[in-house]
Amino acid sequence: MGGILDRKIFHRLISVDEVFDVVEKYYPLKPLGIERVSIEDALNRVLAQDVYAPIDHPPFDRSMVDGYAVRSDDIVGADELNPVKLVVKGKIEPGQKPGINVDRGEAVEIATGAMIPRGVDSVVMVEYTRIEDSNVYIYRSTVPGENISTTGSDISSGDLVVLKGTIIDENLVGVLSGLGIKYVNVYVKPRIAVYSIGDEVVEPGKPLEDGKVYDVNGYLVTSGLKKIGLDPDFKGVLPDNYDILYRELEKDLREYDIIITSGGTSAGLGDVVYRVFNDLGEPGIIVHGLKIKPGKPTVIAIVNNKLLIGLPGFPLSCYMVFNLIVKPMIGRIIGLTNNDSEKIKAKVPYRIKKQLGKTWLIPVTLIESRKGYTAYPVSLESGSISPFIYSDGYMILPENRDVILENSLVEVQLFRRLEDLPKLNIIGSNDYLLYEILVESNLAYLTRILSIGSSGGWEAIKREEADIAPTHLLDEETLVYNKPFLEKYGLSDKAVLIRGYGRLIGIIVEKNNPKNIRDVRDFLREDIVIVNRTKGSGTRVYLDYLLKRIALEEGIDFNKLISRINGYYYEVKTHTAVASAIKHGRADAGIGLGIVAKIYDLNFIPLTWEEYDFLILHERLEKEHVRIFIERLRDHDFMNNLIGKYKGYYKLYNDTGYPI
Amino acid sequence: MGGILDRKIFHRLISVDEVFDVVEKYYPLKPLGIERVSIEDALNRVLAQDVYAPIDHPPFDRSMVDGYAVRSDDIVGADELNPVKLVVKGKIEPGQKPGINVDRGEAVEIATGAMIPRGVDSVVMVEYTRIEDSNVYIYRSTVPGENISTTGSDISSGDLVVLKGTIIDENLVGVLSGLGIKYVNVYVKPRIAVYSIGDEVVEPGKPLEDGKVYDVNGYLVTSGLKKIGLDPDFKGVLPDNYDILYRELEKDLREYDIIITSGGTSAGLGDVVYRVFNDLGEPGIIVHGLKIKPGKPTVIAIVNNKLLIGLPGFPLSCYMVFNLIVKPMIGRIIGLTNNDSEKIKAKVPYRIKKQLGKTWLIPVTLIESRKGYTAYPVSLESGSISPFIYSDGYMILPENRDVILENSLVEVQLFRRLEDLPKLNIIGSNDYLLYEILVESNLAYLTRILSIGSSGGWEAIKREEADIAPTHLLDEETLVYNKPFLEKYGLSDKAVLIRGYGRLIGIIVEKNNPKNIRDVRDFLREDIVIVNRTKGSGTRVYLDYLLKRIALEEGIDFNKLISRINGYYYEVKTHTAVASAIKHGRADAGIGLGIVAKIYDLNFIPLTWEEYDFLILHERLEKEHVRIFIERLRDHDFMNNLIGKYKGYYKLYNDTGYPI
Repeated sequence: MGGILDRKIFHRLISVDEVFDVVEKYYPLKPLGIERVSIEDALNRVLAQDVYAPIDHPPFDRSMVDGYAVRSDDIVGADELNPVKLVVKGKIEPGQKPGINVDRGEAVEIATGAMIPRGVDSVVMVEYTRIEDSNVYIYRSTVPGENISTTGSDISSGDLVVLKGTIIDENLVGVLSGLGIKYVNVYVKPRIAVYSIGDEVVEPGKPLEDGKVYDVNGYLVTSGLKKIGLDPDFKGVLPDNYDILYRELEKDLREYDIIITSGGTSAGLGDVVYRVFNDLGEPGIIVHGLKIKPGKPTVIAIVNNKLLIGLPGFPLSCYMVFNLIVKPMIGRIIGLTNNDSEKIKAKVPYRIKKQLGKTWLIPVTLIESRKGYTAYPVSLESGSISPFIYSDGYMILPENRDVILENSLVEVQLFRRLEDLPKLNIIGSNDYLLYEILVESNLAYLTRILSIGSSGGWEAIKREEADIAPTHLLDEETLVYNKPFLEKYGLSDKAVLIRGYGRLIGIIVEKNNPKNIRDVRDFLREDIVIVNRTKGSGTRVYLDYLLKRIALEEGIDFNKLISRINGYYYEVKTHTAVASAIKHGRADAGIGLGIVAKIYDLNFIPLTWEEYDFLILHERLEKEHVRIFIERLRDHDFMNNLIGKYKGYYKLYNDTGYPI
Repeated sequence: MGGILDRKIFHRLISVDEVFDVVEKYYPLKPLGIERVSIEDALNRVLAQDVYAPIDHPPFDRSMVDGYAVRSDDIVGADELNPVKLVVKGKIEPGQKPGINVDRGEAVEIATGAMIPRGVDSVVMVEYTRIEDSNVYIYRSTVPGENISTTGSDISSGDLVVLKGTIIDENLVGVLSGLGIKYVNVYVKPRIAVYSIGDEVVEPGKPLEDGKVYDVNGYLVTSGLKKIGLDPDFKGVLPDNYDILYRELEKDLREYDIIITSGGTSAGLGDVVYRVFNDLGEPGIIVHGLKIKPGKPTVIAIVNNKLLIGLPGFPLSCYMVFNLIVKPMIGRIIGLTNNDSEKIKAKVPYRIKKQLGKTWLIPVTLIESRKGYTAYPVSLESGSISPFIYSDGYMILPENRDVILENSLVEVQLFRRLEDLPKLNIIGSNDYLLYEILVESNLAYLTRILSIGSSGGWEAIKREEADIAPTHLLDEETLVYNKPFLEKYGLSDKAVLIRGYGRLIGIIVEKNNPKNIRDVRDFLREDIVIVNRTKGSGTRVYLDYLLKRIALEEGIDFNKLISRINGYYYEVKTHTAVASAIKHGRADAGIGLGIVAKIYDLNFIPLTWEEYDFLILHERLEKEHVRIFIERLRDHDFMNNLIGKYKGYYKLYNDTGYPI
């Protein structure tokens, strides 16, 4: 356990750029060997040899059309008026070896792909011929070589077809086959063991006790390796226990080339991975933390010429380091010459201040506008897993920068293909019925909903990043919903409000209302804990409006008032999260949708009908999916049918704006 | 065999857009069923259910940092000068259920990821604390919720996590795992049989007789299906024989959901697939040719509710129809909602005239410049296979257009990822030593060489599409190589010629020169067949220069002269193709590089030293890979070492332009 403390040189954190050089000092990042495989099994493998064509392609002079093989000097001047008559000598089908020698005045019927016989130099298409008994009339002359694909004209024997290091795709399998090549040399795949480590980690399918979490990293890393064609063994979850881990890894060192763990690397309370990696053999730990955030507690060890990588325990940190370091490293070991994940440039929507001396990795949502892509940071909590579904990749903010200016370009490493980005971006308030409309219109697959509250939606429309912004903002001066904000945001000329529907909002409380909550005044009670919505959401604005009225009536300061409310700062992003918090006893009450209370089987005290409308840029009104959405919204039968399912919680307005 | 002739409605060719609707009339293009798989086996499968979160994530309030869990109202006003002393009540590690209730004046040591105990509302980072005996001094106040990740703040129980129809990637596997979901419903994979059909088709690994070709399509289609996660069975090559094919497919109809064949669909000599498909059962053939070029002879049949697809025999046609029709069709059957291959827009470099009423598919090479991508057509021979390696995709020219104007944008369906496009484009003359330089400089992987002749290279530089254009153009007036063309092409201000090297060119003839060829005059002999290079190549220019001198001396017309040369129009694209033609007896002589003659073990009659230089745009001189290339070229030790290997066939010039 001792030695490591003396190797001071490794105690500094290492940059992403340096880490490959450091590892290469101890472990050559190159293929472990070569094996011979059949081309049927070669898909996605990396070629370990240059391939030269062993034969010509086509392997013989062949006809490119159905017609008659002729000598061009026999038919000089042939045209519609002056056909030339030739004697048909026979017929050649594809695959036949022509046992025919064509003399002057003769022709041979020939099929596409069939071998050209000796004596002819061109083929007349069947369209320009007429057969009569054993003669053919030719209505067009040819030049030598016409309609003949000559031997080796496509690929010549000896041509370099493909360089080693190429990933074998289906096209190359086809070409290899066409050249008669049955076996190729490819680089061997390393044998890889994957572990998740931590007393708190439980495998899915097992019950979850208090304080425990389900494993993410083991499945994530294993699947990520499978994705690049490897066959890793996920060996399960191990506790933060030195002896157990030592025993398992010592055994694995005999069977595997690479061992990847996650968790147990924190400098905090449990650094078991660090100690085990270092004690297993020489030289032990060679990378002792990275200058990235998140991802710092990453360790790399070399033991008996095997590579051991300890990834951070938090899933996002784990995955980013996996992408940034592990995949390229293993890429070199399987011989990939270009192993980068897809990266694009995107602009940041606002100024970001960061620490100097660290590379920052932040999951983002990409929104495309006429000006290119904008990368919206979605989460800075490395313990979260929702960014895996809701973000498109992560942006990489360089080590040597402390401020990223608004609109400046940053690099984004993609989680998925650009083509799979949503076609319709709805940014703003979230709603239950809205989901239903999208699902029923077959728009759900194509849509991304970013629930960042009504105000966020207005901002996103202003920046032209949202196609549609759902909004239910109450103007406190006029007590009118949404409309007054067109002017306040300076969007009167640029955007339009499409009438949506009314939705019933109120206080959600526990089933049977055990604490006897009657109205918002009860939120001030000592024995009540509320759950609140995030700033900028229409629901938060509405609650604050109610609380301000109370403050006014009571003659006390608004800030004083809210400081008395337990849970005022317990903020969640959605209506369902409000209901969930109450359902699970984390709060006694919160403002939310009636329909959500009903779905969660909670009690509901109605407060008001919110007007839920849709803000849309003029220029987007004609965009296909926007148009479909508006059509559905205006289809009263369609809407009534949906609303019928949620009787009492939603209502439609007629064209003059009144409820119907 | 009869019935089909009556179904006149199917005898017309069908557009690409119509084909899905036609098929859907007989065969629903939707999933065949659902199966339950473990998330470990779910990678790349298509989800057949909406997934809702069964638990909250995080599943409990947890600490985001290492530190002390406190009540914020205990430490109001705490700062560097006024620390607050709290009693440490214990320690909570990740995975532990905290059996601690914290009262006023108390704190608990807590690790990142550990569960927050009852009674506290925030965590102070360890950096702002100091421990002394069983007390902790707190140097910073907190707000409620600080450094706590609350239950469900990431994903709330009941949240819709992902819609059915989603392809399960590694990110989603991780999320499912993190939510404790062990099994999911996915769509079943159809069982698919693949055949190649044709008397001329031979499997790789077997000997190739005259008139036969190696199979491409079977391996191509099978690999292409594997690539999208299916497990097709390639059942081998069958002859153009009705009985054999009928017997095999009748058997397969009991075992497989989909049968895909290629070849044997031509309307010409063998339409065996067409007849078998139609005779196997009702309704038989429903698509009887497509309005695309290449790809017309595509047939689709439905038999006993099974889908049968007959693809064209020529590999390029086969693959394009596979991409355009088969993959999307099978995509729907495995439940993919967005199954498009990657497509981009690119401009065409010159006017293309096409047939109205057919969609044209042309393989292209993509070249990126500041103005976006340009799509260079690479081949119009659907029998060729080199486009599978040398092209990046194919452009789709719409049915209803007969002219595509220069610089207009067309759609290109990609064969590979855009990121994998070469970083260095060398367009123009081809050379053996040039390859060596690239390989030895580690540039070969990153480079695309388009061998379109010296003149083509000058044009490509003019259009800013080539980084480097290798050239050996002889100016007939001045007898100077390359330099005079800077002015002729109007590139004096825009590009620069970098001095390359000299290479020995001459007449390549058969081993031991059995026909006793001495100089170019022998090309006029009746008993000699030559192989020529394509127009625009420097070698062609040089041969024509020599022939013009002969014509002048003889006092005859140049065109008259060349009409006497056998094989003058037998044109090939590379030096190796010249050597190959002579080696295989297809020609007696041709102009080519000495080094190539040597490699092919042929005789060589030297004619001249060509000056082989590199034309480079000014603005590209600083591009990384261009810079490396020029550095290598100017590194005399490096170059002499390479040239040494080809003693006598190459030479260097010194800086003043004279040979050294």
